[in-house]
Amino acid sequence: MTVYLVGAGPGDPDLLTIKAAKLLQRADVVVYDRLIEPAVLELAPPWAEMIDVGKRPGTPANAQTRINDVLIDRGRRFDCVVRLKGGDPFVFGRGGEEALELRAAGINVEEVPGITSAIAAPAAAGIPVTMRGLSSGFTVITGHQDPNTERWLDWDALARTGTTLVILMGASRTAWIAQRLMAAGMSADTPVAVVYSATTEHENVTRTTLAGLPEIDVTNPSTLVIGAVAAQSVLVPGVAGAPEALALHSPGVAGAPEALALLSPGVAGAPETPAGNQQELTQKGALR
Amino acid sequence: MTVYLVGAGPGDPDLLTIKAAKLLQRADVVVYDRLIEPAVLELAPPWAEMIDVGKRPGTPANAQTRINDVLIDRGRRFDCVVRLKGGDPFVFGRGGEEALELRAAGINVEEVPGITSAIAAPAAAGIPVTMRGLSSGFTVITGHQDPNTERWLDWDALARTGTTLVILMGASRTAWIAQRLMAAGMSADTPVAVVYSATTEHENVTRTTLAGLPEIDVTNPSTLVIGAVAAQSVLVPGVAGAPEALALHSPGVAGAPEALALLSPGVAGAPETPAGNQQELTQKGALR
Repeated sequence: MTVYLVGAGPGDPDLLTIKAAKLLQRADVVVYDRLIEPAVLELAPPWAEMIDVGKRPGTPANAQTRINDVLIDRGRRFDCVVRLKGGDPFVFGRGGEEALELRAAGINVEEVPGITSAIAAPAAAGIPVTMRGLSSGFTVITGHQDPNTERWLDWDALARTGTTLVILMGASRTAWIAQRLMAAGMSADTPVAVVYSATTEHENVTRTTLAGLPEIDVTNPSTLVIGAVAAQSVLVPGVAGAPEALALHSPGVAGAPEALALLSPGVAGAPETPAGNQQELTQKGALR
Repeated sequence: MTVYLVGAGPGDPDLLTIKAAKLLQRADVVVYDRLIEPAVLELAPPWAEMIDVGKRPGTPANAQTRINDVLIDRGRRFDCVVRLKGGDPFVFGRGGEEALELRAAGINVEEVPGITSAIAAPAAAGIPVTMRGLSSGFTVITGHQDPNTERWLDWDALARTGTTLVILMGASRTAWIAQRLMAAGMSADTPVAVVYSATTEHENVTRTTLAGLPEIDVTNPSTLVIGAVAAQSVLVPGVAGAPEALALHSPGVAGAPEALALLSPGVAGAPETPAGNQQELTQKGALR
């Protein structure tokens, strides 16, 4: 009778936490967002109910209310309900709202943090959000803001904090963002990095400046990194998603047979799986 | 011949990523900071060289240079060197500097993000760093700043962004911080939460206001959360570190035998393991 608000991390299934993986492995129900990698969902048992509540263009306005209703209903009927969210549930994930709704309905709720792309996306591009001499902090906002809450952000102040500015969900507003920050006094030469689909196979990094940002094509899911660190590339270029690192996902790679057991259910366990379970697994796959 | 800069998360060993756990399991050398939980270090193989480079009061001024030298030396000699840092390597972890030193020495370096306490500590106290109607973003800084970089932060702007302000390593400067923010126009009534040693068994949460902050005793490692969300408690009070969640660490707990395999090598695998492997596992266990 607990709903777990669980962060699924930025994309790479190996960036899931051990705690999240354990909960998924014993979930009765998984209620999940868009952009969750199939390998993560496959951690759930074959008998778990899998509910896709990902919002897409054209989603009804009351989508969040419906999600809350589903969580409350399943939370009342099942022992372990995993509400799986991309990134971290409490970083623009509506986790706080869902937690309050669940508590109001008398349902126990716990939270399991996830790696937020606000930090992991810059990192994948070799950009540390903080670095001595370049940045003593970072500020994370969304470019796609709720009109009811936008009044809370002071863009003039945001341009002057001296922290790295990280903007999530800002793809459709890059021109506005660049102009607003320059109008507030931020230099047109300020380095900018746009990290698309970080830590996945589609990852792509574009470097520009604040003045150049409106000129480039940016699509979601992209993370904008604005500030001196955005010109950095402290890792070997091109090794975010390096062959060696990715090899760890693949069953049968030489060198780390034990380690692989961590994320490949059905690999370590497969030889002993009875035919019946195997069939269930196949059916499960068919439902995804 | 790769040094992996790996985030160990905020404290709870289950908040390690699967990727970090896999790398630890095949590490030749682990170079680790203070405040890393023993259960995390125990993931390394028995034959791994374990090097504690945690800085303590009285640590020589050139400690970072010595750490770089150790990383370069081991990086030249071993296949898999894990540089394990609390939280995330690129959030005040000096990961960027170490990466640059390693690259300059011709050593391959990769980064594995970790859960930062900047988000996980508020979350453990039931505080979402962003929440509709209360906060459209968050800013993370340290209270203990390098004098050479402090000029980069504009505290007047920090007080006005409208984002949640999260301060790491600020225990010794709470009075200064409170006064500085109030002088910059932040309300004396602004809610403040102080989260000590989040996600560990020592976790403790104190709520106050900006005006009240100088009156309370704050010791490191504490995370300060300043802003409207700091008054929130969206989870059931007291369940950060809830019995159910923590039980997942313990081998032999009913309900989740499979899940346990993730962090307890040799528990779930044991029944089907042939005698030869069993012996290896036992030997391995004995060293833990």
